[in-house]
Amino acid sequence: MSEVYANRRSRLRDHFTAAGAAAALVTHPANVRYLAAAAPQGAALLLGGCEDLLVCAGPLDDRPGEGRPDESLRVHALPGPGADPAVTAAGLAAAQGSDSLAVEEHHLTVSRHRGLAAGAPALRLTDLGGAVEQLRVVKDEEEISCLRIGAEIGDQALGELLESILVGRTERHLALELERRLVDHGADGPAFPTSVATGPNAGRRGHRPTDRRVEEGDFLSVCLGATYRGYRCEIGRTFVIGTSPADWQIELYDLVFAAQRAGRESLAPGAAYRDVDRAARQVLDSAGYAQALPPLSGHGVGLEIDEDPQLAPAAMGKLDACVPVTVEPGVHLPGRGGVRIDDTLVVRPEADGGPELLTITTKELLAL
Amino acid sequence: MSEVYANRRSRLRDHFTAAGAAAALVTHPANVRYLAAAAPQGAALLLGGCEDLLVCAGPLDDRPGEGRPDESLRVHALPGPGADPAVTAAGLAAAQGSDSLAVEEHHLTVSRHRGLAAGAPALRLTDLGGAVEQLRVVKDEEEISCLRIGAEIGDQALGELLESILVGRTERHLALELERRLVDHGADGPAFPTSVATGPNAGRRGHRPTDRRVEEGDFLSVCLGATYRGYRCEIGRTFVIGTSPADWQIELYDLVFAAQRAGRESLAPGAAYRDVDRAARQVLDSAGYAQALPPLSGHGVGLEIDEDPQLAPAAMGKLDACVPVTVEPGVHLPGRGGVRIDDTLVVRPEADGGPELLTITTKELLAL
Repeated sequence: MSEVYANRRSRLRDHFTAAGAAAALVTHPANVRYLAAAAPQGAALLLGGCEDLLVCAGPLDDRPGEGRPDESLRVHALPGPGADPAVTAAGLAAAQGSDSLAVEEHHLTVSRHRGLAAGAPALRLTDLGGAVEQLRVVKDEEEISCLRIGAEIGDQALGELLESILVGRTERHLALELERRLVDHGADGPAFPTSVATGPNAGRRGHRPTDRRVEEGDFLSVCLGATYRGYRCEIGRTFVIGTSPADWQIELYDLVFAAQRAGRESLAPGAAYRDVDRAARQVLDSAGYAQALPPLSGHGVGLEIDEDPQLAPAAMGKLDACVPVTVEPGVHLPGRGGVRIDDTLVVRPEADGGPELLTITTKELLAL
Repeated sequence: MSEVYANRRSRLRDHFTAAGAAAALVTHPANVRYLAAAAPQGAALLLGGCEDLLVCAGPLDDRPGEGRPDESLRVHALPGPGADPAVTAAGLAAAQGSDSLAVEEHHLTVSRHRGLAAGAPALRLTDLGGAVEQLRVVKDEEEISCLRIGAEIGDQALGELLESILVGRTERHLALELERRLVDHGADGPAFPTSVATGPNAGRRGHRPTDRRVEEGDFLSVCLGATYRGYRCEIGRTFVIGTSPADWQIELYDLVFAAQRAGRESLAPGAAYRDVDRAARQVLDSAGYAQALPPLSGHGVGLEIDEDPQLAPAAMGKLDACVPVTVEPGVHLPGRGGVRIDDTLVVRPEADGGPELLTITTKELLAL
C-alpha cells in the first residue's frame, strides 16, 4: 500500500516543482489523508527537498477507521499543544534548504499564513491551489471498493428503517436511528449529518431534522451515507406514507425520477459536467419547475462528501472514467414538500457496462 | 431580546472604531450567532457605517434550535450559490462609504481574504482579531440559563445509561445511545462527539469510541454534552465495571477526584487562569503523574464547546464572574487506562455562594 501513497506524493511533486516551488505544505485534512494514509488532527504534510515529513500536533493515536501514516513517511510529533505543526514544517523546509514553499491558501487562515511567513522568513510562500483536490478526482479501484462497501452499508441501514413503523416518529429520531444502523453495519460513522424530511420539509436538500412527526399522506425524504475507511458516499430516497399516494405526489415523483434517470444515463467518460447537469435539469425545467431546482444536480464524492467535480450549469470540465459522483435532482414546493432521489455512481466506459450504480435501494415509489 | 444583540454589536462597534476601522465584517459562525441571534450557513455580518447587515448565502430556513436573525438587523439573501456573502458584504461596506474594514483574519482563509480585497479594492482591510471571542467570555443570565438546561439534559442522559446493562456493549454503541438520549431530552444535538472509553482507553481526553466492548473490571469513562439553543456544555465521569474496584483503581480515582475538587474550589472572580490549572495539576504532579497529564485542566464553554479562557499553565488572564468553564483533570496510563472527571461550572463570587455547579451527576466512584 505504501507505494500508492508514495506515487500520489510523487505526482504532486511533479506538479509543484513544475510550478517553480521547491517544497509544498499540505494542511487540508482530506488532502493530508490522501497523501499520507492518515490525517491526525492538526497534522501538516511537508513534501520537502530531501524527504517527506508528517508533522503532528501530538503523539499518534491508534484510532480504528482513521488509518496509520504511510510507513515511507517520516513522522515528527510535537511534544505539546500550542505549536502549529504547519509552522514547524515550514521551518524544517527552510532548514532543508528550500527557498520556496507552496501552501494551500484555500485552507490556511490569514493568521496561520502570517505565522508561517514569520516562522520561516527565508521562504517565499506560493499557492498550491487545489492541486491535491484535482489528483483526488479519479479514484483507484481500492478507493472505489471503499465507496462500494459504504454504499452497501447505507442501503442496509435504509432497508431496515423501511421495515419499521414510521408514522408518529420525529425526523430527528429517524435520523439518529439511521446513524446508529450505519455504525451497526460497520461504518466509521455517518458521512454527513443524516437528513430526514417529512411533509412540507420533504425534498429539501440538506434539510436538518426537526421534531416534526411523520404523518399519513406525507412525503418522506431521507438522505444518508456511511463513511468507510475515510470514504464517504450518499443515498437519497423519497417515500409516501400511507396506502395511496395522491395524484400530485405520483406525478412529481415520476418527474423527478425521470430527471434523475436522465442524469444517470448521461454519465460517461468525456461527458461535460454541465451536460450531465442539463440532462437532469431540463426534464424538470420543461415541466415548469425552474424556480424550484437546486443549484447543482450532483457532485463528486470520496474522502469528502462534496468534492470535485460539481455537476452544475456553469461547471467547466469533463468526466473521466473512475470518477464517483452523485446524481441527485429534486423539487421542493414551499409549503407542500417535494421529492429528491440521490444515487452514487462511478463513471465507467460503455465497454465496461456504463455507469456503476453503488446505491442499489429501489427507486420505485414505495407507499409505507 | 433584540436589545441584547444590538448592545453586543454596539460594544463591538466601540472596539473597532477605537482601533481605527470604519466597519467590521464577522464571519466566524459562533461570532455571527452571538451578534445576530442566528448564523445561517456561510452568512457574513457587516457592522457598517450606516447600518448592520446580515448577508446570507441563500434564503433563510426556519430551523428549530438555530434561532432567527435579530429583527433589528437588515437581512440580505443572495439569490444562488457561488457568490461569497463576505465579498458581497465588503462591497456594500465600500458602497456605504467606509474606507476600512476589520475582518476576522483567524477565520478567513488566504483565498477568501484575497477575494474580499479584489471585490472591494477601495477598502483597507485590517484585523478584527478575537474581539468578538473576548466579548463572549462573560455570559449573561440568559446564556447561563441555556447552559444550565443543557447540563441537565446531559445529566439525564448519563443517568439513564447507568441504569442499563453495560458489559458486552461497544464504546460506539454506548456513545450513539447517549447521543440519542440527549436528543430525547430536548437537546438540539450533541455539543461535541460523545466520548466513551473502556479499559485501556479509559481516561483519554477526546477518545473516539471504538468497537471495544465493556468488560468486567474495566474503568469506563464517558464525556458528553448537549447543545441547547446553541449553547454547549460538558460532563465527564469515570466508573468501574463490576462489583469490586481494584486498589489501584480506587487510588487513581481518589487522586483525580482530589485534583478536580482542588480545581473547582479555586474558581473565583479574580483567580488567575493558570492558578486554577495549577491547583488541579499539582495534586497529580505531586503524586508522580506529571507525564500523564493533559495540556489543560479546563476551558470556557458557550456557543463553542472549547472557547476562551484556557485553564492551562501558560494562560494569561483572570476569571470574571459569570464565566462558565470546565474543570476536567485526568490521568491516562498507557496500556492500563485511567480516570477523567469533568464538570461545567459558572464562576460566581463568594457572596453568591461561590462556583455554580451545572453538572450535578454524582462524583462518587460507582461500581456498575
